[in-house]
Amino acid sequence: MQQTNKEAIFDFTSYLDVRRARLEKALDFYLSERSESRESLEKNNWKPSTLYEAMRYSALSGGKRLRAALTIAGAEAVERAPQLKDLDPVELVLPLCAAIEMIHAMSLIHDDLPCLDNDDLRRGKPTNHKVFGEAMALLAGDGLLVMAQEVLLSYCHEKIDKGALLSVSLELCRATGPSGMVGGQVLDMEFTGQSVSEEVVRNIHARKTGALIKFSLWAGGALLQAPERQLQSLARLGEIIGLAFQITDDLLDVTGSAESLGKTPGKDQASNKATWVSIFGVEGAKAKLKEMEKEGKELIKESSLDNPSYPALQSLLSYSINREK
Amino acid sequence: MQQTNKEAIFDFTSYLDVRRARLEKALDFYLSERSESRESLEKNNWKPSTLYEAMRYSALSGGKRLRAALTIAGAEAVERAPQLKDLDPVELVLPLCAAIEMIHAMSLIHDDLPCLDNDDLRRGKPTNHKVFGEAMALLAGDGLLVMAQEVLLSYCHEKIDKGALLSVSLELCRATGPSGMVGGQVLDMEFTGQSVSEEVVRNIHARKTGALIKFSLWAGGALLQAPERQLQSLARLGEIIGLAFQITDDLLDVTGSAESLGKTPGKDQASNKATWVSIFGVEGAKAKLKEMEKEGKELIKESSLDNPSYPALQSLLSYSINREK
Repeated sequence: MQQTNKEAIFDFTSYLDVRRARLEKALDFYLSERSESRESLEKNNWKPSTLYEAMRYSALSGGKRLRAALTIAGAEAVERAPQLKDLDPVELVLPLCAAIEMIHAMSLIHDDLPCLDNDDLRRGKPTNHKVFGEAMALLAGDGLLVMAQEVLLSYCHEKIDKGALLSVSLELCRATGPSGMVGGQVLDMEFTGQSVSEEVVRNIHARKTGALIKFSLWAGGALLQAPERQLQSLARLGEIIGLAFQITDDLLDVTGSAESLGKTPGKDQASNKATWVSIFGVEGAKAKLKEMEKEGKELIKESSLDNPSYPALQSLLSYSINREK
Repeated sequence: MQQTNKEAIFDFTSYLDVRRARLEKALDFYLSERSESRESLEKNNWKPSTLYEAMRYSALSGGKRLRAALTIAGAEAVERAPQLKDLDPVELVLPLCAAIEMIHAMSLIHDDLPCLDNDDLRRGKPTNHKVFGEAMALLAGDGLLVMAQEVLLSYCHEKIDKGALLSVSLELCRATGPSGMVGGQVLDMEFTGQSVSEEVVRNIHARKTGALIKFSLWAGGALLQAPERQLQSLARLGEIIGLAFQITDDLLDVTGSAESLGKTPGKDQASNKATWVSIFGVEGAKAKLKEMEKEGKELIKESSLDNPSYPALQSLLSYSINREK
């Protein structure tokens, strides 16, 4: 990948590390139980932290935090509303980032359950239901799904415009529910084992993983009331990155090693899942990625999203395409 | 039960029927799939309606609709914001009612799953997972949980105050998530088979069923910006009705017949669940109900919630205590 001078100077890894640390701290805070009646229940032998333990196990288990990074990069790239000019854009979107990562964690917990993918390992650790049992994993997923909206609404900075918050909250629902992630999961389940067209693969991924990634990028700008032109570019860039991420995932499933991936490769092929590689072949998928990288770079430039202090959007775009795990 | 003249004249059954019919129509509309890509997917042999079918199966399967009735009765009883004076209060809270009933339906789907209560029958019909399989039931529950907020936020009347909507949306999360319904479900699971104190039983029920019922009554007024004094009374009345409902449930489990209940009685006792009857005994529980009915009636009167056209709050209070199934 050819890098511009600006990208070469920008330290993407430490950019991500600093922001990831703030996100982890925020998530840890939001997922601390503060029940008034805890003490009285403890007297009665209740283990009050079981549900929170289960939610924290998955929500605080690391991971790439790609979605939160996109939200933050979007927030830092846009021109924000006048009343927010003097505030730290990262601080302003932390509850939103936490909400998105909770939804992502929840989707992994439910997907791993025996009735769906029946996975025992996730990020090299036993899956949630292997540790806490199926009932608790089910409820931890439900809990995280609700907590996401709760955190977004209750910890949002008072200077955030109410209309912007409502619109972000609604779009989070759309990205998550039947028209988004949950709907995509159903499609994925129903088409497994069938030979499918490019259109169907695109639709499955656009919903199952794409919708939340697209939302993540758009929402960082939308919450800060960025101009419509920038929001449209963020949304399109989110589509590109989401699709690129999925194509790369499919490629790595074919070309990667268990060691570099931290999971067993070839699983999609073995279960006959619809993937981009099964549609385009390895070379076709790589060409598609190059094309998308080009479109994304142009979008960033045209919409003045190339923040000179933090050219993180370019780096995230390149990362989603060139990552090795 | 002694009735005042006003209550005797008021036809509670037809009051409920008219409102329930509007709710069912709204729910049916909100749960119709309107995906643009449906046609193209159908060409690829996708059964697009499976997820919606599963969600509709549970959300439109009737039931008492107590929660929606409470929301409507609350909305009709309060003094609403000036900009809403000329509008129909029932129309204004229909998306909220639908959201609440979706959450309730979702909780039943997940509770019935094999890893939790493992129930085959619900309201005399096979449970969701018996019809659609465990994976689809899991996802239908997830879908309804998200759709609830989506419907509330996207169909809310434009004249509803944004701050009021945000506050209702946040309280819905609190009533539903770890501090409410989901948390109560965890407690219920953890304490099953243990001998417990009144305090623990109260806490379990306040969260598992009470939180959503309390929310339902309060939210009908809160969305229409009722005066704080009325909102406080609605919240307290919601606590009373929620608790009364649960005590009555526990009593019916002991004293009711399978025929009148539509479900097997004695199940709680058999599984050694913590109930009000196990704490107070049958007579004690009945006395508690009488006491609560008195407090509720006084609250309604003191806070001018006794709407002369629709004295539905009184009737709902009496119903929650005197029902036979």
